[in-house]
Amino acid sequence: MQATVLYGPRDIRFEDRDAPTIMKPTDAVIRIAATCVCGSDLWPYRGINAVTAPTPMGHEYCGVVEEVGSAVKSIKPGQFVIGSFFASDNTCPHCHHGYQTSCQHKEFVGGAQAPLLRVPLADGTLVPTPDVPPDDMLPSLLATSDVLGTGWFAADAAKVKPGMTVAVVGDGAVGLLGILSAKQMGADRIIAMSGHAARQKLAREFGATDVVTERGDEGVERIKEMTKGIGADAVLECVGTPQSMMQAIRSTRPGGAVGYVGVPHGVELDGEKLFYTHVHLHGGPAPVRRYLPKLIELVWSGKINPGKVFDLTLPLDQVAEGYRAMDERRAIKTLLRP
Amino acid sequence: MQATVLYGPRDIRFEDRDAPTIMKPTDAVIRIAATCVCGSDLWPYRGINAVTAPTPMGHEYCGVVEEVGSAVKSIKPGQFVIGSFFASDNTCPHCHHGYQTSCQHKEFVGGAQAPLLRVPLADGTLVPTPDVPPDDMLPSLLATSDVLGTGWFAADAAKVKPGMTVAVVGDGAVGLLGILSAKQMGADRIIAMSGHAARQKLAREFGATDVVTERGDEGVERIKEMTKGIGADAVLECVGTPQSMMQAIRSTRPGGAVGYVGVPHGVELDGEKLFYTHVHLHGGPAPVRRYLPKLIELVWSGKINPGKVFDLTLPLDQVAEGYRAMDERRAIKTLLRP
Repeated sequence: MQATVLYGPRDIRFEDRDAPTIMKPTDAVIRIAATCVCGSDLWPYRGINAVTAPTPMGHEYCGVVEEVGSAVKSIKPGQFVIGSFFASDNTCPHCHHGYQTSCQHKEFVGGAQAPLLRVPLADGTLVPTPDVPPDDMLPSLLATSDVLGTGWFAADAAKVKPGMTVAVVGDGAVGLLGILSAKQMGADRIIAMSGHAARQKLAREFGATDVVTERGDEGVERIKEMTKGIGADAVLECVGTPQSMMQAIRSTRPGGAVGYVGVPHGVELDGEKLFYTHVHLHGGPAPVRRYLPKLIELVWSGKINPGKVFDLTLPLDQVAEGYRAMDERRAIKTLLRP
Repeated sequence: MQATVLYGPRDIRFEDRDAPTIMKPTDAVIRIAATCVCGSDLWPYRGINAVTAPTPMGHEYCGVVEEVGSAVKSIKPGQFVIGSFFASDNTCPHCHHGYQTSCQHKEFVGGAQAPLLRVPLADGTLVPTPDVPPDDMLPSLLATSDVLGTGWFAADAAKVKPGMTVAVVGDGAVGLLGILSAKQMGADRIIAMSGHAARQKLAREFGATDVVTERGDEGVERIKEMTKGIGADAVLECVGTPQSMMQAIRSTRPGGAVGYVGVPHGVELDGEKLFYTHVHLHGGPAPVRRYLPKLIELVWSGKINPGKVFDLTLPLDQVAEGYRAMDERRAIKTLLRP
C-alpha cells in the first residue's frame, strides 16, 4: 500500500509501505474510511519536535474492520469502528477511572494516514457505530476520534457546567470543538479568543457568544472587563505554549478551572504564582475512549456536527498539501480520503 | 500592651506596642483568648522570606469581641469569635464562590500574637461560637482558625471522598490535620509520609492507617507498591518545597488529585511532565472562612479534637521560645496564652 511518512521538517512523503497485519492476538486491522492531519502532527512537521527516523503519520481514524486477532471478542470484521490515538485495554485501574490514555498497557496508534491501519487492543480501543454510516457523516464521526474528544476533555477538565462563563484559548480545531463541547455542557456565555475571521465565524456557529481578538495581557484584561473583573468560571487551553497557558490561567476566576489539552511546549509554571491564582488545573492527553460512546451518539443522532472543522478535503495521496495548508493556516483541518 | 514583633532572622521580640483601635467602621477589636505560631511564621523567622521592617506577628486567633465599628451589624461585643488570616467581606463574587482568601476586599490580619487584635471586615470575617467556650476547648477552636482549616482545604482540594486511598506529604501541624480531615471525609486508607516518631503517633491518632518514612523517589515508590502500582487517589501537599510538590504529584494516580496548601517556595512545574501525569491540581491560601461554621460545629460537638497538634503551651510573653521550639522541631505547634 502507499502511506504517509514524515522524514524531517516539512518533508512528508506518500510512499510504498508494507500493509499492516495482525501481530498480536488482540489486534485488529481496519480499512480507513477517513483520516486527517492533527494540530499535533505540525509539531514534528515544523521541526519543533525532532524527527529522528522516518515516521508513519496519522492517529485519527475511522473505518471498517478487515481482520481481527484470535483473542478479539467484541469487535468483528465488517463493523464500522472509531478509536483513539492511544490503544487501551479499557479494563485496568486507570481505564476504570476513565483515564484510558494512561492505560497500564497503552500503545500509541500511528500510521493512520494510510489505507489500512493496525489497532492494538482492539476490544478495549475500538467503538463500533450502530451501522455503517452514510458518507456525509464521515467527517463528524472522524472528528470524535481525537479533535472533538480532546475539545470535550478540555471542557470537562475545566468543569464546565450549565450557566457558566467559559473562555477558550486557541482557535484551532480543538479550540473550536471545545466551544461546541462547552455549548453542549450548557455554558451560558462562551468567549472565543481568536484573531482569525474564518475561525471566529465557525466559533460562533459552534456556540461562541463573544469573540476576543486580543492576546496575552490585553486578552486577559478583556476577559476581566467582560466579567465585571471576576474572570471566567472555566477556561479551555487548547494551544500549549507558555503564553497561551498563562493567558488561560490568568483569565480564570479564583476557584475556577483551567482544562489544558494543548501539549505543553516550553511551559514552566511558577508554583507560588499558581498558588495565589486559586485555579483548578487539569489536563493531559485526552481520554477520548471515555467519551467515544456519547460523542458517537451525539453525531449519529444529528445533534452535533463537529465535522465542520474540516475545511479542506483531499484524496490521501495529496497528504503533503494537507499538511502545507494547515501549516500556513490556509486550512483549519484537513480531511483525507484513501 | 506588649506584643510579638519579628525584627529579623530568629529575632523575635515581645515589646510595647500601641493597643489596636477601631480604624474603620467595619472593624472589630477582639481580646485574644489563645493564639499560636504558624508553620508559615517560620519562613521569615528562618530568613527564607526577607524581613524588611519590624513585623507584628501572628494570624491565628480566637477571643472575645471588645469593640466594634459603627458599620458592624452581626458581630457584637462579648461574643466569642474565630476568624481567618485574611479578612473578607464574604459578599463579593469570589467569597460567594467560597474563595474568601481571594476576596476582592481581602486584608491580611497580622499581629495576633498579642492580647488585642484589630480584625477588619468583622461581619464577613468573624464567626461566633454558640457560647463562650470552656477553657479546655480553646486549643481545638483555635485550630479551626488556620491550621485545621488549611488541612481541611488540602483534603477538599484533593477531592477526598469515602473509600479513597489518600497520601499526606508533610507531618507538620497542617499535614496532621489534613489526615484528620481526610478521615472525616471518609477516606478508607490514609498514608502519612513522616519520618518523625512523635508525629507518626499523632498521625495514627488522627486516622492514618499507614506510615511511609521514605521521601523523594523512594517515598513515591513505596506509595506505588502499597497501591498495586496505581498511586493514591488523593494526595495532600502540606510543605511547599520543590521536593514535596513532586513527591505529591508523582504519588497520585492518573485522574487523581493533589491538594496543595504549603506556600510554594522555589517550586517550578514542568508543564509537559505535569500534562502526562493526568493529575488534578488545586490549592492556594485556604479559604478557611468557608469551612469555619462546619469546623466549629465539629469541635463544639466533640466529634474532633484538632487541638492535639499543640504539644507546647506557653504564656504569650515566652513567644520567642515558642518559635525556637518549632524551628528546632522540638514542638509540632506552640499555643500561646495572653
